[in-house]
Amino acid sequence: MIQTIGFLGGGQLARMSALAAYRLGFKVAVFESIADSPAGMLTKLDFPGSINDDQKLKEFAKVCDIITLENEFIDPSRLELLQSFGKNVFPSPHTISLIQDKLIQKQTFRSKGLPVPDFVPVTDSSSFDSLSSTLGSEFLLKSRKMGYDGYGNHFVKNSDDFVEGMAKLTSRHDNIMAEQKIEFVKELAVMVAINSTGTAVYPVVETIQENHICKLVIAPADISPETRSKVETIAVDAVKSVDGKGIFGVEMFLTANDDIFINEIAPRPHNSGHYTIEGCVTSQFENHIRAILDLPFGNTSLVDICSVMINTLGKIPAKVEF
Amino acid sequence: MIQTIGFLGGGQLARMSALAAYRLGFKVAVFESIADSPAGMLTKLDFPGSINDDQKLKEFAKVCDIITLENEFIDPSRLELLQSFGKNVFPSPHTISLIQDKLIQKQTFRSKGLPVPDFVPVTDSSSFDSLSSTLGSEFLLKSRKMGYDGYGNHFVKNSDDFVEGMAKLTSRHDNIMAEQKIEFVKELAVMVAINSTGTAVYPVVETIQENHICKLVIAPADISPETRSKVETIAVDAVKSVDGKGIFGVEMFLTANDDIFINEIAPRPHNSGHYTIEGCVTSQFENHIRAILDLPFGNTSLVDICSVMINTLGKIPAKVEF
Repeated sequence: MIQTIGFLGGGQLARMSALAAYRLGFKVAVFESIADSPAGMLTKLDFPGSINDDQKLKEFAKVCDIITLENEFIDPSRLELLQSFGKNVFPSPHTISLIQDKLIQKQTFRSKGLPVPDFVPVTDSSSFDSLSSTLGSEFLLKSRKMGYDGYGNHFVKNSDDFVEGMAKLTSRHDNIMAEQKIEFVKELAVMVAINSTGTAVYPVVETIQENHICKLVIAPADISPETRSKVETIAVDAVKSVDGKGIFGVEMFLTANDDIFINEIAPRPHNSGHYTIEGCVTSQFENHIRAILDLPFGNTSLVDICSVMINTLGKIPAKVEF
Repeated sequence: MIQTIGFLGGGQLARMSALAAYRLGFKVAVFESIADSPAGMLTKLDFPGSINDDQKLKEFAKVCDIITLENEFIDPSRLELLQSFGKNVFPSPHTISLIQDKLIQKQTFRSKGLPVPDFVPVTDSSSFDSLSSTLGSEFLLKSRKMGYDGYGNHFVKNSDDFVEGMAKLTSRHDNIMAEQKIEFVKELAVMVAINSTGTAVYPVVETIQENHICKLVIAPADISPETRSKVETIAVDAVKSVDGKGIFGVEMFLTANDDIFINEIAPRPHNSGHYTIEGCVTSQFENHIRAILDLPFGNTSLVDICSVMINTLGKIPAKVEF
């Protein structure tokens, strides 16, 4: 019987997931580089240590009945080590290996026929001219690993940008890819939870970025039912293409022609889904816990539109028309 | 600055309050007779010990910036000891001293003109005949302290019942009172949170008891607007009459004539308010934390009526009429 859920990483996402785990009656263990991290302070089972310390990981695994992670930056081989101690890890190391490297991620999506911006690996022989001949005169350089919130990205529109971007990115990252710049009208995101009981899809939301960081989430996104349905299908297929188990945030671009391109997938609760704590019947964090435990999912419907009305008007609606 | 909230008692109410405190960003300390109680397992600041151990209480107080309690059974002198260590305790020992002894509680309500069933203290010279001449031929014997969920109550309708009830109650309790039996049509309850910023009143609910234990809560209660308003006023006045700061559950009887009598008050989150976790914009636990910290209250309105509609119909309402 599952009693204790272990979290690799003790930041805000692990903290909010841990609170959801507690509400469901489970115990929580945390592995983080420091003690008393945001999640670590919620439990006596707080394991400060290096992710590269086999012995520390073994001690952590010993108290856990199942292990999950709060980010996609852990080397899959460390997750395999935890599996070798007899503990299930979700999302699995296989899933992480398909997501962590953004080139492999995009190749995986493309191999399943899912729509992605055009992309190529950057090699020693790449130049602005060679890349722009494939991707167009404006494109993005991206570190293949460890990027988030715009870190690891560089926008290129001429040869000087290319040289500058490559110098900047290669100073911190080994492998770089280049990606077509999509002229989007909206950035959309969907949370998808998946396990052997099925899938749970949250409302499609629009995200508005400022300096590459999500500043505003509009839930639900103001899009047509046809677009919504297409976005949901792509999101679920994207999660299935990486053999996902857990909750996943799928970020997409919507163009003026109603074309959709997958931007990125995150194998964890996502900042575009924080609104679900108050805004949906079941939060993304609770459904993440349900996902890894193969429990049936809680309802992902919005509640906030109605509560906002009650808040504003101080009354319970007498009649609701759909 | 308040960082750590201490809970006297580590049971389910402290656990749910602690989770609300964590959501608001506070730290949590727990004092309970055993380690790893339901709330104690949520923190490293877990203080197992006897409530009568001054030194243990001092160690606990040292890590707390403010202290609250999960039940009304702690001797007020222990709370005063915590105050002597320089820490605020809410609800205050004064409030607890007015609530803990049900005779003093009822006297306090009566002295403020609030409606209560008729009652008298039981003395050595009390008999079925003497009590029934005041209270009617059917009445209740109640232990003045430590009663809950019907424990400490005995229903009396003749001299034999009286003898049996007194034998049973005095074997466990020092002081007994007798109380008029109210013929009610509904049992109602209201949660009221109060601090220097004002009061927050939750929906009036109907509670249905089975073997004296609450089995069902109907929110909101099916009562007239006039009754609802009367109940809310009495509940707020009851909390003010005990100089309350924190959240309080006020239980009442409603008669066929629309008369209202206060049954009991609990100076803490209450089982008739558990529905507020999913059913209201702000849970009783969060508003308890807000109350003791003099923070403004979160909205107490119901949200579930709308979420149920969305759940059932799978759609967001296009139009809502009030």
